[in-house]
Amino acid sequence: MRILGFESSAKTASVAVCDESGLISQYYQNSGLTHSRTLLPMAEDMLKNLSLTVDDIDLFAVAHGPGSFTGIRIGVATVKGLAWAKDKPVCGVSTLQALACNGEVMPDESLICCVMDARRGQYYNALFEMRDGLPVRLCADRAIGAAKLAEDIENQKKRVFIVGDGALLCYNTLENLKANVVLAPEVLRFQSAWGVCVAAARAPWQSVHELLPVYLRMSQAERARRESAVGHAVHTEKQGGSA
Amino acid sequence: MRILGFESSAKTASVAVCDESGLISQYYQNSGLTHSRTLLPMAEDMLKNLSLTVDDIDLFAVAHGPGSFTGIRIGVATVKGLAWAKDKPVCGVSTLQALACNGEVMPDESLICCVMDARRGQYYNALFEMRDGLPVRLCADRAIGAAKLAEDIENQKKRVFIVGDGALLCYNTLENLKANVVLAPEVLRFQSAWGVCVAAARAPWQSVHELLPVYLRMSQAERARRESAVGHAVHTEKQGGSA
Repeated sequence: MRILGFESSAKTASVAVCDESGLISQYYQNSGLTHSRTLLPMAEDMLKNLSLTVDDIDLFAVAHGPGSFTGIRIGVATVKGLAWAKDKPVCGVSTLQALACNGEVMPDESLICCVMDARRGQYYNALFEMRDGLPVRLCADRAIGAAKLAEDIENQKKRVFIVGDGALLCYNTLENLKANVVLAPEVLRFQSAWGVCVAAARAPWQSVHELLPVYLRMSQAERARRESAVGHAVHTEKQGGSA
Repeated sequence: MRILGFESSAKTASVAVCDESGLISQYYQNSGLTHSRTLLPMAEDMLKNLSLTVDDIDLFAVAHGPGSFTGIRIGVATVKGLAWAKDKPVCGVSTLQALACNGEVMPDESLICCVMDARRGQYYNALFEMRDGLPVRLCADRAIGAAKLAEDIENQKKRVFIVGDGALLCYNTLENLKANVVLAPEVLRFQSAWGVCVAAARAPWQSVHELLPVYLRMSQAERARRESAVGHAVHTEKQGGSA
């Protein structure tokens, strides 16, 4: 079974192909170039160099979020397009679950703390614990403040491996916990399509119509509309009150 | 300073671009296709996707061996060609030194044991120890038998992280030491161009004419010729003795 995985949830972009024997190829980029320009050519070049075509892929996998709204939409739309055209199954996996696979280097009982920079003083985060060589989820994906996350980590009193595009920022705020905290080295730190493939190989498949982005938070546009609606309601109420 | 790194010392092939900020892109393949077909297109596709050209590269780096004679020749010849054409410096790094960079995930005082399958009952090997977050070399690159390597590791009595295309084979022969030995997870196990870039960034530059393959052992053809010459000498001596 051959999986083609896509990861475009933040600044990095990557595509990977794996099968039962493991990773066949991964193409990773952390250039700041827009995913709409880089992601699909990376997949095309990679398949061509492997003497494969899209017909040779059995499952299309993608990090479905949380993450950058635009990045997630590009990844999910790419996979939906490919799978729909070829009538093949898909697998959307949590960006944070895929990141946790980068922490499989840690010994059992270590915690893996996956952190993405969610802006506005928050991280997208999930905690995992290594058991029998696999990351086991300790909490649902969430948007969380730095202070609450530090408290959660401190309460666990275990060795913690921090991965994700928010890892360095998070590491620098955990001053009191440094002795127990390991910042993932750069080659393991960022989101990767290999992690997506590993997570997808352990997850149920979906039909292309079941695959949806998972944003966890409202978009800027939705927030603005809601605030404007609330503002309008308050304004109308005030007007009513003063009438 | 922008480095373009090549790794083709065994079955895997990879190319990477990095600068002072870290890894910009890595393209990795473990398909079994011949490097003479895959390696240069990978570099071309990667630079194009990054909106870069060969003119944007300041240093060409390569794993100069030990490893597969053909693989090393392809990597070294590619880098020599590019650097000569563009009149730029090169940096040849030990394949095992580059592999050690994959072990930088381990805590200080851990050993990193880099092992490549050298066939004929031997490994290409070097041992490193993590000090202040960097791998420090404990012995020169060598071709060594499994029993001697197991003895060397046992004498160190430290936690050992095993990387390289011979890692799994080596790990399986270290039955008595399992408690102290960590097999690198697949994403860190194999030779990578990112490791070549990291090692090259810490090493002196060379002129293109100084770059040479480092085989450590004689090639099959050289061995056959020497054996034939020795056989011929013995034969001649015997003939002389009987005359």
